[in-house]
Amino acid sequence: MSPKITTELLKQLRQVMKSPKYVQEPVQAYIVPSGDAHQSEYIAPCDCRRAFISGFDGSAGTAIVTEQHAAMWTDGRYFLQAAHQMDNNWTLMKMGLKDTPTQEDWLVSVLPEGSKVGVDPFIIPADQWKRMSKALRSAGHDLVPVKENLIDTIWTDCPQRPCKPLITLDLSYTGVSWRDKIIALRSKMAERKVLWFVVTALDEVAWLFNLRGSDVEYNPVFFAYAVIGMNTIRLFIDGDRMMDPVVREHLQLDSNLEPEFKIQVMPYGSILSELQAVGADLSPKEKVWLSDKASYALTEAIPKAYQYLTPYTPICIAKAVKNASETEGMRRAHIKDAVALCELFNWLEKEVVPKGTVTEIIAADKAEEFRSQQKDFVELSFATISSTGPNGAIIHYKPVPETNRTLSVNEIYLLDSGAQYKDGTTDVTRTMHFGTPSAYEKECFTYVLKGHIAVSAAIFPNGTKGHLLDSFARSALWDCGLDYLHGTGHGVGSFLNVHEGPCGISYKTFADEPLEAGMIVSDEPGYYEDGSFGIRIENVVLVIPAETKYNFKNRGSLTFEPLTLVPIQTKMIDVNLLTQKECDWVNNYHQKCREVIGAELERQGRHEALRWLIRETEPLARVQ
Amino acid sequence: MSPKITTELLKQLRQVMKSPKYVQEPVQAYIVPSGDAHQSEYIAPCDCRRAFISGFDGSAGTAIVTEQHAAMWTDGRYFLQAAHQMDNNWTLMKMGLKDTPTQEDWLVSVLPEGSKVGVDPFIIPADQWKRMSKALRSAGHDLVPVKENLIDTIWTDCPQRPCKPLITLDLSYTGVSWRDKIIALRSKMAERKVLWFVVTALDEVAWLFNLRGSDVEYNPVFFAYAVIGMNTIRLFIDGDRMMDPVVREHLQLDSNLEPEFKIQVMPYGSILSELQAVGADLSPKEKVWLSDKASYALTEAIPKAYQYLTPYTPICIAKAVKNASETEGMRRAHIKDAVALCELFNWLEKEVVPKGTVTEIIAADKAEEFRSQQKDFVELSFATISSTGPNGAIIHYKPVPETNRTLSVNEIYLLDSGAQYKDGTTDVTRTMHFGTPSAYEKECFTYVLKGHIAVSAAIFPNGTKGHLLDSFARSALWDCGLDYLHGTGHGVGSFLNVHEGPCGISYKTFADEPLEAGMIVSDEPGYYEDGSFGIRIENVVLVIPAETKYNFKNRGSLTFEPLTLVPIQTKMIDVNLLTQKECDWVNNYHQKCREVIGAELERQGRHEALRWLIRETEPLARVQ
Repeated sequence: MSPKITTELLKQLRQVMKSPKYVQEPVQAYIVPSGDAHQSEYIAPCDCRRAFISGFDGSAGTAIVTEQHAAMWTDGRYFLQAAHQMDNNWTLMKMGLKDTPTQEDWLVSVLPEGSKVGVDPFIIPADQWKRMSKALRSAGHDLVPVKENLIDTIWTDCPQRPCKPLITLDLSYTGVSWRDKIIALRSKMAERKVLWFVVTALDEVAWLFNLRGSDVEYNPVFFAYAVIGMNTIRLFIDGDRMMDPVVREHLQLDSNLEPEFKIQVMPYGSILSELQAVGADLSPKEKVWLSDKASYALTEAIPKAYQYLTPYTPICIAKAVKNASETEGMRRAHIKDAVALCELFNWLEKEVVPKGTVTEIIAADKAEEFRSQQKDFVELSFATISSTGPNGAIIHYKPVPETNRTLSVNEIYLLDSGAQYKDGTTDVTRTMHFGTPSAYEKECFTYVLKGHIAVSAAIFPNGTKGHLLDSFARSALWDCGLDYLHGTGHGVGSFLNVHEGPCGISYKTFADEPLEAGMIVSDEPGYYEDGSFGIRIENVVLVIPAETKYNFKNRGSLTFEPLTLVPIQTKMIDVNLLTQKECDWVNNYHQKCREVIGAELERQGRHEALRWLIRETEPLARVQ
Repeated sequence: MSPKITTELLKQLRQVMKSPKYVQEPVQAYIVPSGDAHQSEYIAPCDCRRAFISGFDGSAGTAIVTEQHAAMWTDGRYFLQAAHQMDNNWTLMKMGLKDTPTQEDWLVSVLPEGSKVGVDPFIIPADQWKRMSKALRSAGHDLVPVKENLIDTIWTDCPQRPCKPLITLDLSYTGVSWRDKIIALRSKMAERKVLWFVVTALDEVAWLFNLRGSDVEYNPVFFAYAVIGMNTIRLFIDGDRMMDPVVREHLQLDSNLEPEFKIQVMPYGSILSELQAVGADLSPKEKVWLSDKASYALTEAIPKAYQYLTPYTPICIAKAVKNASETEGMRRAHIKDAVALCELFNWLEKEVVPKGTVTEIIAADKAEEFRSQQKDFVELSFATISSTGPNGAIIHYKPVPETNRTLSVNEIYLLDSGAQYKDGTTDVTRTMHFGTPSAYEKECFTYVLKGHIAVSAAIFPNGTKGHLLDSFARSALWDCGLDYLHGTGHGVGSFLNVHEGPCGISYKTFADEPLEAGMIVSDEPGYYEDGSFGIRIENVVLVIPAETKYNFKNRGSLTFEPLTLVPIQTKMIDVNLLTQKECDWVNNYHQKCREVIGAELERQGRHEALRWLIRETEPLARVQ
């Protein structure tokens, strides 16, 4: 991997930073954040501006270019990658290390007095703008919005913004019509006394209208905004995809609807001016609801006194609680996904053990092949982490030809993968050994399993926040002086983003929303031995009501039900480290895999995989 | 309990709210917060202004008086008490209930346009001022500082501010001289590039100078401020207590010290003008460090650009990590405290069972009597919670004649008590039954015990925040659908405040500092059945290094060691609900109580209490 040569690009950027064609006054620094205008986690190629200017294409990083310097802030996951991908023009700022300055402090230290720092107001979230603007102002500088994105001005071969056809989802998938979602949203708006709601996150637009797209890889979303009033619905979207009769029918664009359900379709690029018009027309006490992570540009379109900002929007919260149709869809998707993985693991056992010709990339491709054979398969839900031996210890590893390793009987293999099906989204990690694991590997695996079970079987009162469960996943590891440096779980969308808010299971946040029945999260503790192996056991689990003796004085009890039904390799388990309760959990789980997935394998005529499943779900027995 | 008649007082207050003698312009509302000028949890009688004006004397509450209204905000612990203590002039604002307005919202709803809201700038913390001022300003009102406290102007028989003699603590108690503490503080100041540090919390002043006082009940502190520069030390303190030759010697006031260790003693009331002088004399980039909870008055004395505010001061953090001398002192204090409790419980068994003449108040007094017989006893560390039957379910109960209940063989008795000894501070809760507990009572007690053990025996990596351990205390209760609505533990001072920051074990905070060896916290899960009983099991525990197999890749392992060594009533335990490990924990704990406290009881010739101890520490045996 050789670094991108950026000397010429930086020269061009520094020119446009001073060019009256693009900036009112010259800017002495220009910030290039990671995100897109919707603060998406996964972005389209046309939004990879930070990667374009620097060469560094990890998922998180902020570039700042001044007349003299170019610096890149990224976190521990990407120190190595960024160092490899960037040339000597760039200084790597290792976030999380004690001596690394914040972006603000660094800017203050390098800028001449009274400098202007430019940023694209569509890319920077309002809360971040606020923080940075305040810090710069107190040091005598100014953060200024630069309307035209300066990277785009020098990115001559910038790919076009994708504009792919839409998929409509009927009631059997969504359970609730878009019309009823609008009604529910308006009732939340009335509760909070707001007149307008601005939908800026792509998955929220998709969910609200029961539409899906493929503008961004892995995420079935499409570029759009929506502005919902008490009597109006405006959808900002480009392309001839709104000409599709199926979409028109779905949105009832040509029907004689009541005016308050009539969708006005407007160009994607007109959101700002339309929102400014809304803002200009407000009377005192009329409020506009936005996410506090919405872009500075859109937030500022509404005068401050009229802004109503919350960390989680009502759509984000409603979307997280899956209804019966969505839950059933998720169950179906997970059954299909398990069939594909049984096929894969059976195939791997046949290939790896005698032949030794399967690489990480081949295994990942094979997993995709088996998944794509399943009904309603759309695409993968994220880049497959197919990693063997030491690669498994790299938490966000993705095999590329330079690192591609061959699976063998001597190393642990970790596969973290998932797919988008029209009825649901999957995300599952299994850790396997095709030979004989060492006692230490089994020990670590068993602690991780104990943590996985501790979360999955936890019982807790209704309204508990997920972060309060995080330590349950670590307790067995902690007892032996082991830990893992990532959260334990994230929310999972229903044929939507594989990572979604507002709930999760992590020590890192305190602002998550309380868990309630119908929410879906992952449960994925791990253990990583640098240079040797990685272990992770991940199921997607559904929050369900639990039966408890005293039921929290009628507050209600919750627990989890695994939606993922893929055997956990018993060869890796040191049974004597399990309690009887944990052993029973594994056996019950495997019994359910055998019944549910076995029936589906049978139905699909996949007899060899069925035999593999039955072999892998033999009950464990503890030595008493 | 009849309410305080406040009609006349409110009339007087409303007069001074308009009197040019006290306010530059009339204020339409006046806020009376709970605290004192040091944001203390426990306050002196002269600072109980909110209780004076309203009659409500709970530990938390804010009064606001307008020309028409008088309203009191308090939380769920005090709804009943506040309703009883206040007359009809007052409206109770029940915090935590959905429909209760915030103080800001309420003010905005009742005030005429363009109102002024007054508050004593010495009583309101700067962060609170900021929040409230912003909210009022955005509604067209003004929060204004009223220099003279308006309650004081009408409180004709206001008690004097206490000014009691000081106690000096030598190195055998503190382990570090005040001089070395100043050196360490200055090095922290240098690290952060601040020139001045303002000590506003009373326990921080006391800790820094190795002095103790008795100006506030239960807290061995004295009214003072300190301002530490890189070359100066200013102590703001009143009274002839600085004439005491022992104190003068301790502070080396009459020695020929290097100038940077020479303490300048100044009047308590001159802090503001001195700080303003410091503030006026600063050059650019010179900073003054204050707690962000310091009063608005003191914070504003320093121009904004020069303020360096942090949630926890370096003294708060240093004070939390006890050195060997402090730890040994805490151990000694807990041994003496256990002796007193063994005496008490032995006495209770003899009195309650056959005679039935012991009330909650008599039991509390007896506990104090036994404690006061111990060496270096100073006072109690908080008001004893002595509660039987349904009173035990009132978490912050304190027996008064109206509620005083007689202990019996039919009810659970909960005693939460502690003391200040010159070598340490104690806080212990035991829950006892003097007859035969029901199966349900034993079941609940055993779950609480399992939670207590889960925290006490937890192993976790160095740097873990206490809030991550909170759920361990609840897991056994949760499994049965039970919970308790308070945190699991708080920091404990060393012959200082029984509640101190910056660490603790609670689901309620995310801002606690990481636990490290030498910190001392309480471990006190509970269960409360309204109208029936309360259960709590509380030990004070010391954070110590743990031995683990893999030691978190040299990050280090921590666990807790109980300092409290008082038997946990085995009669209340359903042994079959314990795991073998938990059973072993109880037996090891009781073995240690028997050895350590037994030896001390023997030494003190308390043979009857020793026999009680031996009886109460018989090992449990699980039916296998």
